[in-house]
Amino acid sequence: MFQSIAVVGATGAVGTIILRLLEQRNFPVQQIKFLATPRSAGKPIMFAGQEYKVEALEPDAFEGVDLAICSTPDEAAAEFVPWAVERGCTVVDESGYWRMNPEVVLVVPEVNPEALQRHNGIIASPNCSTTQLVVALKPLHEAARVRRVVVSTYQATSGAGLPGCRDLEHGTRAHLEGKPYKYEAFKHAIAFNVIPQIGSEKQQGYTSEEMKMVYETRKILGDETIQICPTCVRVPVSNCHSESILVETERKISVAEAKRLWDAQPGVTVVDNLGAGEYPMPSNCDEKDDVFIGRIREDLSSPNGLAFWCVSDNLRKGAATNAVQIAELLLASRAEV
Amino acid sequence: MFQSIAVVGATGAVGTIILRLLEQRNFPVQQIKFLATPRSAGKPIMFAGQEYKVEALEPDAFEGVDLAICSTPDEAAAEFVPWAVERGCTVVDESGYWRMNPEVVLVVPEVNPEALQRHNGIIASPNCSTTQLVVALKPLHEAARVRRVVVSTYQATSGAGLPGCRDLEHGTRAHLEGKPYKYEAFKHAIAFNVIPQIGSEKQQGYTSEEMKMVYETRKILGDETIQICPTCVRVPVSNCHSESILVETERKISVAEAKRLWDAQPGVTVVDNLGAGEYPMPSNCDEKDDVFIGRIREDLSSPNGLAFWCVSDNLRKGAATNAVQIAELLLASRAEV
Repeated sequence: MFQSIAVVGATGAVGTIILRLLEQRNFPVQQIKFLATPRSAGKPIMFAGQEYKVEALEPDAFEGVDLAICSTPDEAAAEFVPWAVERGCTVVDESGYWRMNPEVVLVVPEVNPEALQRHNGIIASPNCSTTQLVVALKPLHEAARVRRVVVSTYQATSGAGLPGCRDLEHGTRAHLEGKPYKYEAFKHAIAFNVIPQIGSEKQQGYTSEEMKMVYETRKILGDETIQICPTCVRVPVSNCHSESILVETERKISVAEAKRLWDAQPGVTVVDNLGAGEYPMPSNCDEKDDVFIGRIREDLSSPNGLAFWCVSDNLRKGAATNAVQIAELLLASRAEV
Repeated sequence: MFQSIAVVGATGAVGTIILRLLEQRNFPVQQIKFLATPRSAGKPIMFAGQEYKVEALEPDAFEGVDLAICSTPDEAAAEFVPWAVERGCTVVDESGYWRMNPEVVLVVPEVNPEALQRHNGIIASPNCSTTQLVVALKPLHEAARVRRVVVSTYQATSGAGLPGCRDLEHGTRAHLEGKPYKYEAFKHAIAFNVIPQIGSEKQQGYTSEEMKMVYETRKILGDETIQICPTCVRVPVSNCHSESILVETERKISVAEAKRLWDAQPGVTVVDNLGAGEYPMPSNCDEKDDVFIGRIREDLSSPNGLAFWCVSDNLRKGAATNAVQIAELLLASRAEV
């Protein structure tokens, strides 16, 4: 087991869920500390019935720490992750900064656990919109080789952290009262609106969020030949990302085969009964760890296409759950040694 | 000109906009009457500064009426449209009932005005999600032949009429106050949620709303070989439908060519500057008559693909505006005779 653990970004939207998951899943901990920006240092934090104080994120904070589970903005991760690695600490990082670094493995435990064997001190966890996509694609890719993916997302405001959550609630209240509201996390009003931009302009008219779906999916599935056309859209939903996905495979996969493959896939729950009005939605996937799949049907527009709908809690499997699962996998591989 | 006009369903979400448009566009009217279910009969209605009384929708109400512009549920349209046609009245019908009848023309004035020459008394106006799609596809189809369309929608609650609008507002207020709310128009909560079902289960796992997009698009573009894979989703937006569209054409269309084609297309406004955060959204397309297009980019997943984002006011171009434009076109063709 790990003697000493640090949770970095413990006061953020994802950090607080990481704490709850470590408690609920009885992650074995001898010593634990909670790191955040100096602004949050000194704040009390409850963990497993004990009160701790948040400590400032600085180089020496990683002294003697074996494992750090981190959820911070990219710029912070760029700076502090080397402090940890230099001190022999293994880092599970939720940020976007290290994911595409060729020296860093990018891991979803149900999809590419084998990558963990090659880690050099940093294990990156993918972007929320990618994670649920690769979990859904994995068994299809193994069975019939995914050639092409067209995906349009319906992403929740919690993906923009606590400011995103505040914006949706306060912006909606203000809108209903006919009052003005100055948005903090979003360029445009999100109350009763949809915004077809997440992240900044990146390349060829695509956003950074969209290009993450392209590059991270290929890296995790270990196949640079998969072609992906993403459209990432913010919707006025508090939590859980939804995705409308069309996948083309080398060999045709029937609806029945897809259901069998997903039923056998750890981390996936199929909810698919259109006639009864049953399918995944943010309202029924909130605070769950799985990736939910429904509306499974043959593509009407290509011979080897399959269309489906995929929802997952972006703070859970899209972030905190995946990080904690990586930590559990690290623990298991240590136990084997 | 038409001597006598009737607006059927004048008290509904679309009907009230039809009235405003007839006023604003100075549609020439000698005599006008307003028909609705007997429940609404007798209600006062203001038009062009005069007060009228809503009359009951019954067979003799169409006696002496030249033109009826109608927005009612399908079942009503199935019954009353023949009453009108038998009395020599030309009907522009917004409902879904007559659209796919081979004897009935389905018209979007910017797309297939020539179909109007063949009408047999009934001119159907397409479903809202189809109308904006075909307006966007039209110049691409003419220039390079559309072969395949993958579309995911983000549809507003006003598409479910006044009960849909009420549900979003009251459901959202109740949610924010932690109170229960019984939805009237939707199977599931729409406040802070997305629902991947519009209409009922139709065939092969697709809904009636999705199959409308397939069949109506082919009929309007006059090409039964266009392959379409739709996913229709309700989002918590009051008004304006958004669509994430990927189109594959026989010959490749560059982003620059697509912009030129759309700039030249009546009824289309291009808003496309991702770097400046400019693109169509419900918040900036509300109460406008055009179809708005942005996020125009090459498909990263196929050689002849083009991806874009399309927003339009579903009560305007998606319904009332299109119906009034059809009436204007009928008027112009009468003037020519």
